[in-house]
Amino acid sequence: MANIFTSLKGAYNLFKHLDFDKLEALSKKVDIPKMVETISNLDEKQLSGMMKLAGGNRKEQELPPIEGDFYHLGDEALKDEERALQLKVRAFLEKEVKPIVNDYWNKAEFPFEIIPKLAKLNICGLTYKGYGCPGKSNLMEGILAMEMARIDTSISTFFGVQSGLAMGSIYLCGSEEQKQQWLPLMQQFKIIGAFGLTEPEVGSAAAGGLTTTCKNVDGKWILNGQKKWIGNATFADILIIWARDVDDNEVKGFIVKKDNPGFSVGKMKDKMALRIVQNGVITLTNCEVFEVDRLQNANSFKDTAKVLRMTRAGVAWQAVGCARGAYENALEYTRTRKQFGKPIASFQLIQNHLVEMLSNLTAMQTLCFRLSQLQDQGLLKDEHASLAKVFCSLRTRDVVSKAREVMGGNGILLEYNVARFVADAEAIYSYEGTKEINTLIVGRAITGFSAFV
Amino acid sequence: MANIFTSLKGAYNLFKHLDFDKLEALSKKVDIPKMVETISNLDEKQLSGMMKLAGGNRKEQELPPIEGDFYHLGDEALKDEERALQLKVRAFLEKEVKPIVNDYWNKAEFPFEIIPKLAKLNICGLTYKGYGCPGKSNLMEGILAMEMARIDTSISTFFGVQSGLAMGSIYLCGSEEQKQQWLPLMQQFKIIGAFGLTEPEVGSAAAGGLTTTCKNVDGKWILNGQKKWIGNATFADILIIWARDVDDNEVKGFIVKKDNPGFSVGKMKDKMALRIVQNGVITLTNCEVFEVDRLQNANSFKDTAKVLRMTRAGVAWQAVGCARGAYENALEYTRTRKQFGKPIASFQLIQNHLVEMLSNLTAMQTLCFRLSQLQDQGLLKDEHASLAKVFCSLRTRDVVSKAREVMGGNGILLEYNVARFVADAEAIYSYEGTKEINTLIVGRAITGFSAFV
Amino acid sequence: MANIFTSLKGAYNLFKHLDFDKLEALSKKVDIPKMVETISNLDEKQLSGMMKLAGGNRKEQELPPIEGDFYHLGDEALKDEERALQLKVRAFLEKEVKPIVNDYWNKAEFPFEIIPKLAKLNICGLTYKGYGCPGKSNLMEGILAMEMARIDTSISTFFGVQSGLAMGSIYLCGSEEQKQQWLPLMQQFKIIGAFGLTEPEVGSAAAGGLTTTCKNVDGKWILNGQKKWIGNATFADILIIWARDVDDNEVKGFIVKKDNPGFSVGKMKDKMALRIVQNGVITLTNCEVFEVDRLQNANSFKDTAKVLRMTRAGVAWQAVGCARGAYENALEYTRTRKQFGKPIASFQLIQNHLVEMLSNLTAMQTLCFRLSQLQDQGLLKDEHASLAKVFCSLRTRDVVSKAREVMGGNGILLEYNVARFVADAEAIYSYEGTKEINTLIVGRAITGFSAFV
Amino acid sequence: MANIFTSLKGAYNLFKHLDFDKLEALSKKVDIPKMVETISNLDEKQLSGMMKLAGGNRKEQELPPIEGDFYHLGDEALKDEERALQLKVRAFLEKEVKPIVNDYWNKAEFPFEIIPKLAKLNICGLTYKGYGCPGKSNLMEGILAMEMARIDTSISTFFGVQSGLAMGSIYLCGSEEQKQQWLPLMQQFKIIGAFGLTEPEVGSAAAGGLTTTCKNVDGKWILNGQKKWIGNATFADILIIWARDVDDNEVKGFIVKKDNPGFSVGKMKDKMALRIVQNGVITLTNCEVFEVDRLQNANSFKDTAKVLRMTRAGVAWQAVGCARGAYENALEYTRTRKQFGKPIASFQLIQNHLVEMLSNLTAMQTLCFRLSQLQDQGLLKDEHASLAKVFCSLRTRDVVSKAREVMGGNGILLEYNVARFVADAEAIYSYEGTKEINTLIVGRAITGFSAFV
Repeated sequence: MANIFTSLKGAYNLFKHLDFDKLEALSKKVDIPKMVETISNLDEKQLSGMMKLAGGNRKEQELPPIEGDFYHLGDEALKDEERALQLKVRAFLEKEVKPIVNDYWNKAEFPFEIIPKLAKLNICGLTYKGYGCPGKSNLMEGILAMEMARIDTSISTFFGVQSGLAMGSIYLCGSEEQKQQWLPLMQQFKIIGAFGLTEPEVGSAAAGGLTTTCKNVDGKWILNGQKKWIGNATFADILIIWARDVDDNEVKGFIVKKDNPGFSVGKMKDKMALRIVQNGVITLTNCEVFEVDRLQNANSFKDTAKVLRMTRAGVAWQAVGCARGAYENALEYTRTRKQFGKPIASFQLIQNHLVEMLSNLTAMQTLCFRLSQLQDQGLLKDEHASLAKVFCSLRTRDVVSKAREVMGGNGILLEYNVARFVADAEAIYSYEGTKEINTLIVGRAITGFSAFV
Repeated sequence: MANIFTSLKGAYNLFKHLDFDKLEALSKKVDIPKMVETISNLDEKQLSGMMKLAGGNRKEQELPPIEGDFYHLGDEALKDEERALQLKVRAFLEKEVKPIVNDYWNKAEFPFEIIPKLAKLNICGLTYKGYGCPGKSNLMEGILAMEMARIDTSISTFFGVQSGLAMGSIYLCGSEEQKQQWLPLMQQFKIIGAFGLTEPEVGSAAAGGLTTTCKNVDGKWILNGQKKWIGNATFADILIIWARDVDDNEVKGFIVKKDNPGFSVGKMKDKMALRIVQNGVITLTNCEVFEVDRLQNANSFKDTAKVLRMTRAGVAWQAVGCARGAYENALEYTRTRKQFGKPIASFQLIQNHLVEMLSNLTAMQTLCFRLSQLQDQGLLKDEHASLAKVFCSLRTRDVVSKAREVMGGNGILLEYNVARFVADAEAIYSYEGTKEINTLIVGRAITGFSAFV
Repeated sequence: MANIFTSLKGAYNLFKHLDFDKLEALSKKVDIPKMVETISNLDEKQLSGMMKLAGGNRKEQELPPIEGDFYHLGDEALKDEERALQLKVRAFLEKEVKPIVNDYWNKAEFPFEIIPKLAKLNICGLTYKGYGCPGKSNLMEGILAMEMARIDTSISTFFGVQSGLAMGSIYLCGSEEQKQQWLPLMQQFKIIGAFGLTEPEVGSAAAGGLTTTCKNVDGKWILNGQKKWIGNATFADILIIWARDVDDNEVKGFIVKKDNPGFSVGKMKDKMALRIVQNGVITLTNCEVFEVDRLQNANSFKDTAKVLRMTRAGVAWQAVGCARGAYENALEYTRTRKQFGKPIASFQLIQNHLVEMLSNLTAMQTLCFRLSQLQDQGLLKDEHASLAKVFCSLRTRDVVSKAREVMGGNGILLEYNVARFVADAEAIYSYEGTKEINTLIVGRAITGFSAFV
Repeated sequence: MANIFTSLKGAYNLFKHLDFDKLEALSKKVDIPKMVETISNLDEKQLSGMMKLAGGNRKEQELPPIEGDFYHLGDEALKDEERALQLKVRAFLEKEVKPIVNDYWNKAEFPFEIIPKLAKLNICGLTYKGYGCPGKSNLMEGILAMEMARIDTSISTFFGVQSGLAMGSIYLCGSEEQKQQWLPLMQQFKIIGAFGLTEPEVGSAAAGGLTTTCKNVDGKWILNGQKKWIGNATFADILIIWARDVDDNEVKGFIVKKDNPGFSVGKMKDKMALRIVQNGVITLTNCEVFEVDRLQNANSFKDTAKVLRMTRAGVAWQAVGCARGAYENALEYTRTRKQFGKPIASFQLIQNHLVEMLSNLTAMQTLCFRLSQLQDQGLLKDEHASLAKVFCSLRTRDVVSKAREVMGGNGILLEYNVARFVADAEAIYSYEGTKEINTLIVGRAITGFSAFV
C-alpha cells in the first residue's frame, strides 16, 4: 500500500511523516485508495483548505511545500490544460525516471526502457504542426524541458536531440515527402535521431569552418570527415549530418542511416557530466547517400542556423530545470539534516545559500517565461536566446554549487540527488554555444561591433 | 574565388556581409585578388579611412538603439495607454531632471523647482482609488519607479516617500476624514509628507524595538523620542510618526505638523549616496498631538507593516531603474570612447561586461514584472517582495559596478552619468530592509524556520 | 526537569554546557524554575553584568584586538626597526589625519596643514639612495603605502604622486644636476611635484598615443596639448610633463614650473572618489621650457615606463590599505552595534561577511609581501606588478563593499569611516592601468600572445 | 650534473625539455658549468636574442613556460635541497601517477601499484622526528601536498590520511611503545592506516556529538557504532577509531585491526568526486580492543583536535595543488586549441579567465606559504588554518571552474585533465570542515562571539 501513497504526490506530501502503523489503522476506517485519488485531484487551494480543517500537528503542516516555483508561474500563469500537462509529465518523471538515473549515470549507460514510456506522453515534436505532432506553444515546450531537466538533465538532453535537433532539421529543412516519411515515426520514438554538426576541431565556430565534406558524384553524395560529441549517435537509427559541399562551398544536410557501410561511430567514454547521454565520435569514410536523403531545403548554413535558433531557448529552460532540481533536493535535505541538535535549515548561513539559490532560480524562470513569449509572438532573435543561455547557464552553475555546499560531504554522493546536477551543469554551460560565443552574439547586437576575432 | 576571400582575414571581415552576386559584379571592374591583398596590408587607421571614404555603411543609424529593454517589456507587454504614460514620464525626466541632478547631487541639495512639474504629471498616489488619485495598476507604478530611478534614484526616492510611504500610511491607516483632508493635497504636492519609523538604534529590527513613545494624557498625545534617516523630513509639511504607546505597548501612528513646537529636525549632512535626498534626524520632545491627528486605523505594528508591504515592490523596481540608467549610459560611452584606435565597445573584454550587465538587467525586469503581476492579482506576500529586493539590489550593485568599470577613470566623474548610480546603489541596497533581513524573511518562508536571532 | 530548562531560551543558553549532575546539585540549593524565570527576564546588560559578577569570561580585554594583520606580517616578518617605523607612521596617521579627512573629503578640498607634518616623518623618497633620501627597501615602502591608505587613500595618493611619480621621474630620468636641484627639496615637501602623462582622450593606452607635443625651436622647447587627471596639479610647484617630440616622434619629459605663462590648470570638480586629491586638467599653450628643464635621461616612452614600473607595486599596496581600513572599521562597528538585543557581530550572516573580508585582506597582504620581496631581489617584471594590481584592486572592491554592507544604512555616512573607502576603491580600481589593461599585460606574459587589439 | 642545471634558473628554463642524453653529448663540446653561468647572467633581452639566434622552432621557444609558480616561490624562496625534493616528487608524479589516474578515477578504483613507489620517495611522516621519519619543515610538507594534488587530489588525500591523520594520531597521542611499533612500518607503507572520526549523522560537529561508544569491560574495550566517509578504510591494516567512553563521557582513540571480528566495512560507491579515494562506512559491533591498542595519550577530544590542527594546513595546500593542476592544463590547452583560425589563448575573453585563475592561484600560494611559516614558528592557531582552508577551497572552486570553461566541451572529458579537478574540488571544499564551520571558527576568533548555534 505504501507504494500507492508514494506514487501520488498530493498524498505523499500529506502523509510522509505518518508511520505505517497509523496508515494501517486508517485503512480500517476509510477506503484509502479512493481517498488518495480524491486528495490528489484537489487543487492547491483546496488542499490547503483541507489541511487547515484537519487541524492537528500544526508545525509539520505549516512547513511550506518544497517547490521551486516561488512566483507561481506554473499554477497562475499557465492555462489549466497546460498546467495539467506539466503535472502529468512531472509525475511520470518522478515515478519512472528519478528512481533509476543515479545508477545509470554512475555506469554511464542509457536507460532504454524509458523510451516507450516517453512516447506515450505524446510530447515529442511538441510545437510542430501536423505529422502527428501536437502543435503546442513554445512556452509549453520550454516548461517541459525544465521539468525533464529538473529530474535528469541527460534525459532532457536525449529528448532535446530527438524532438528538437533531429526532428527539427527535417521539419524546417526537409521536403514534404521527407517530413511524412520520418516525423510521425520519430514523434513516436520508433525512429531515433541524432544531429551531427560539431567536429573534433570545430566547436562553437561551426558557422565558418566545417571540415566534413560532401561531393556529388554521379548523382550520389559522398561524405567524408569526422563529427564529435554527437548525442544519441551510438544507437540512433538516423543521423542528420551537416557537410560542406566541395563544389559550391555551401553547407548541406543529409539523413544517414546507421547501417550505412561508410558510417561508423565510437562512444565517448570518459565524461564527468551528462554521463547518461551517449555521445559519439562519428567517422564518415566515402559514405554514400542518395539525393532522396539529402534535406531538400537545406541550402546553406543559414538553414542549419534556423534549427539552432529554434532549439536554443530550450537549452536555457534546461538550465532552469537543472537548477530547480538541485534547489529542491537541497532544500528538503536542509529541513531534515540536523547538526548541533537542530535542522541545518534553521541556520542563517544555510538560509542565505537557499535564498540566493531561490532568487537566481526565480529570476531564470521569469526570464525564460518571457523568452518563450517572445518566441510565440514571433519576435525571437538569436541574441534574445543567447542572452538567456548566458544568464541561465551561469546562474545554474551558482545554484547547483550552493546546493551541493549546503549538503556538506553528502553533496558529493549521487544518492542525495544533487551531485549529478553539479556535474551536468558543466555540460549545459558549454553546449549549444559556450558562454563566450553567446556573449559575443549579444555583444554584437547591442554594440553594433563584431568582436569574434 | 570565394576560397581566396575566406582565406584572407582582412577581406573576410570586409566582405562577409556582401552576397556573392555583388562580388562577381565587382570582379568585373577590379582585379579582386590584388585588391584583397592590398586591403589586407592596410593598418587599422588606413582601413578605417577607406571605409569612411566609401561612404557606405557606418552611419550612426545602423547602431542599435541604446535602450535597456532587451526583451520588449515596455513596447510589447504593456497596453498602449500604459506605454504612453511610461514614455511621457520618461520624456519629462530626460528634459527636466537629467540636466540638473549631478549638480544638486554634488551640492547635496534638493531641486525644489521640479515639484510643481512632477505634480502636473498626475502620477502621485498612482494606485489609490478616489481622493484625486488615478487608480492605476501596481505594474504601472513599478514601471514608473524604474523610469524615475533610471534618471535619478534620489528623485525616485523623494517620490516614493511622498506617494508611497506618507500617502500610503493615510490611505491604509487613516479615517475617511483624514483621507479626504490630506490625500488630494498630497497628490498635487501641495502638502509634502515624510514617514518617520527608523530610529538611531533601531534599523531593520523596527517591528520589535521602537523606542519612541506616545502617551495619552488628558485626551492629548505626548510623543517623545528620536527618528533617524527620515527622507524629506527637513522640508515636509507633515510627518507620519510611529510610536509605541506606553500604556498598551502597541505601535500607533501620528500626523505631526512641521510647526509643532515639540518637533525639531536636523539635516544629515555627510552622505556618500542619494545626496539629493534630504534625510533628517527628528527629535520629539513632549510633542503634543491631538487625537484627530492620530491615524485612526493604525492599531498595532501590523498596520504599519501593511504600508511597508505595499511599497516594497517599488524599491525593487527602483533598483532596476538604477541599473538601467547606469547600463544605458555606459553602453553609449563605450560606443564612442576610443582607445588603440577603435571604439572600446568593439573589444571582447568590454562586450563581456556589457552583456553581463544586460543579462542581469533583463532578468531583474522580468522578475519585477512578474512580481507586480502577483501584486495586481492579490497574491503578493512579504517574501515575494523580499526576494525581489534581495535579487535586484544585489544585481544592481553588480551592474553599476561594471558600468563604472568600462568607463575607466571617467567613471568616477559625475558628468559621465554613472558615478552617481554607483554611489546611490549602496543606499538602495540597504534601505527598506537590508539584504540580511530580507534574506531571513524569505528563508523563514521556505524553510519554516525563523533564523533572525 | 531538563524539559523546563530547554523550554526557556535564556536558561538554555546559559546552562547547556553544564551536565545534568550539576543541575541536580544546584536544585538542592535554589528554586530552579524560579531562577530560570528571573534570568530569562534579564536584559542583555543585566545578563552581562551577572556574568561578570560570576567571575566568568566576558572581560573586554578578552576581545581580540581590532587589527587587520591576521598572519602577523607586521610583528613577525619585519625587522624591529622596520616595525617601529611602521608603527610610528600609523600613530601619526591616526592622530593627525584620521580626525580631519571625512570633512575634507566631503568638501573636496586638500588639508595643506598636514604637509609639514608628513615632511617630519622623513619617509618621502623612501627607497632612493642619496639626495637626502632614506634608502630603505621596497617592502618598507609598500607597507607604508598600506598604512597611509588604511587611514585615507587620498593622502596616500598625494604622497605617491610626490614621492613616487614626480620624484621618481627625476631620480630615474634626470641628470645629476637635476637630481641635486630638486630631490632634497621635494623630499622635504618644500617643493611639491605632479606627474603629467594621461590626456583627455588617452588613458590606459598612453604608450602609443600621446597627443601633447614638444618641439625644439631655437634651443627652447615649445609644448602644446592637454593633460587630464593630473594629481596635485592645482597646487604643485613643478609638473613633470610628458610630450611627443614632433621631430623624432619620441616621448620626452619636462619640468614645467607653475608660473610658466604657457601653463594653466583647472580643477576637476565633480568626482565621487578620492575627493581630497586635487586632479587638474592642464592646458599647455606654446608653453616654453628651457633645455635645462628637460629630463636629460628620458629619451623615449621606455624611460617613462621605468617610472611606472617602479611605482606600480605601491598601488597594489594602497589597495590593501584601503581594504584594511574598511575592514577594521567595519569589524569594530559590528562588535558594538546591536540589533535584536545583541551585537551584530554575533550573527552568522555578519561573521560570514567579516571572514570573507579578512580572508581576502590576508591573501592580498601575503601577495604584496612577496611582490615587494621580488622587487627587492631585482626580479620584478611588469606582469608581476600587474597581477598584484588586478588581484588587489578587485578584492578590495569586494572587501569595502562587504564592509559597507555590514553597517547597513550607517555605511553610507562618512562619519562611520567606511563610506569613503567604498568610493575611493573605485578610483584605485581604475588608475595606473585599468583591470583590463593589467589583465592583458599578464595575459601576454603567460600565453605569449598579445591581445590588446 | 643535472643538479647544477636545476639549481640555476636560467638554465633550467632553457633546458628542462631536453633529455639527459643530449646534455651529456653537449658536455663533450662545451664547458657546461661555465656556459650555465654565462647564460644565467644574461638579461631578458640578451636571453631572448640568444634564443632567436639558436634558430629552430622559434614559436615554441618564445612561449613562456607553462608553470603555475608566477611569483617564484619554488625556485627563489626554497632552499636548494628543498627545491630538489620538490622537483623529485614532481617528476615521480608526472611519470608514474599522471598517466594512470583518469582511468582509475573513471572506474572508482585505487591504484595499489603506486604504494611501493611512494614509499621509495621517503616523504611519509615528513615532519615527524624519529621513528624513521625525515623531520622536515611544515612548509616542505605543504609544498609536497600541493605537488601531489597538482597531479591528483585523490592520491594526495590517500597520502594525507596515511601520513597525517593515521600516523599523526599515533605520533601525537600514542605511547612510546605504540610509536615504535607502528610508525616505522607506516612510514614505509608496510602498514596502511585510516582515521575513523566522522559518523553518518555527525559531520562538522564532531567535537560535540560522537555517537560511537566505548566501554571498558573486564579490562577490554567494547566499541559500538558507525563511522562514515573513512578514507582508505576498505583496505587499511589498522584504523584509528574515536569513540566516546560511556563511563566518563570522554573521547578516546583505538587502534583497530582489519581482521577484528567486530569490525566490518562497506565501500561508499556512488561518489562524483575523489573517486579514487576508497571511503568506507565502518560498523563496529561489540568490537573488542585490548588496552594495549588504546592510544595512551588520547584522553579527551582535545587530543583528537591536536591531530586535526596539525593536518589542516595540508588541506589548504591540497586546494592550491588542485587549482594549479587545473590552471596549468588549461593554459596549455588554450595555447594549442584553435578556433576562428588562431589559438584561443590569443582571445581577450580567454586571457581574462587565465589571469583571474593565475591571480587566485598566486594569492593562494603566498597565503599558504605564510601559513606554513607560522606553523614552523609555532604560531599557528586553529583560526589561521581555518582562514586558509576557507580562502583556498573557495578560490580553487573558482579556478577549476574557469579552467573547465576555457576548454569548452572538452573540459568535461577526463582525458583533457581538468574535469577530474573540477569534481575533486567539491570534495576538498567540504572535507576537514565545511566552509561554514571554518568561517565560524575564524568569526569567533575575530569577533569574540561564538555563532555556531
